[in-house]
Amino acid sequence: MSAEFELDPRLAADTAEIGRTSLSLVLLMNDARFPWIMLVPMRPAIRELYELSTADAHRLLDESLLLGRLMGAQDPTAKLNVANLGNIVAQLHLHHVLRTPADAAWPGPVWGFGTRTGRSDAERTATLEFWRQQLAPLLDR
Amino acid sequence: MSAEFELDPRLAADTAEIGRTSLSLVLLMNDARFPWIMLVPMRPAIRELYELSTADAHRLLDESLLLGRLMGAQDPTAKLNVANLGNIVAQLHLHHVLRTPADAAWPGPVWGFGTRTGRSDAERTATLEFWRQQLAPLLDR
Repeated sequence: MSAEFELDPRLAADTAEIGRTSLSLVLLMNDARFPWIMLVPMRPAIRELYELSTADAHRLLDESLLLGRLMGAQDPTAKLNVANLGNIVAQLHLHHVLRTPADAAWPGPVWGFGTRTGRSDAERTATLEFWRQQLAPLLDR
Repeated sequence: MSAEFELDPRLAADTAEIGRTSLSLVLLMNDARFPWIMLVPMRPAIRELYELSTADAHRLLDESLLLGRLMGAQDPTAKLNVANLGNIVAQLHLHHVLRTPADAAWPGPVWGFGTRTGRSDAERTATLEFWRQQLAPLLDR
């Protein structure tokens, strides 16, 4: 099945790959305002969590819990937002956004809020490297 | 542990109980604009999904998948939004909102969008009864 998976072009344009697990792509959102990481199961034609096989759904949960724990460890005062929306890009993707009262959108949701802040090439490279180290327990490579 | 659980007063004020599972309260959001149901695990002092025991987290996922499937069956053209945010009410609660291009907030998120539309007592009673029937496979009672 994985052979048929292709990342949605809009998700590809909006993110950079931190790494992958045996199930999922681990993608950094191109928005410097928030620590924002997505899990995208490499399964074709899946829109809803309940369309995954039961085994894949539980694997995705384990990945999400570990990712959340590693993100949360960055800031014990933060609140993690975990969400599958898919109103714009239907391909299943699970957002993880570390939120604090100091962020621009607090306490509202980040989706559709204001204008994304890009990263320079150097900032993107450094941020990807940072997360590759922090998320080492999650990543297959 | 469950004996110490108390539903956050704000969640209590914003919802009506559809029923419960052995783990969770199943709550209808008091907002007639969207089919909007929350799962609240009856565990005290939990803010993040990763703070649940592994067993509870996987039970909650099973409940969420079943709830999602039953909600999604109402409208095959809809997209389910599943989210734990908790920026305002920290007590862990998992939103399930059935979204369509015809709804007021589409494609943006529902949280913080516009003003909630209340239900009359008769409407609330009928809506609770509707969901109690639809969600019978999920509910313990």
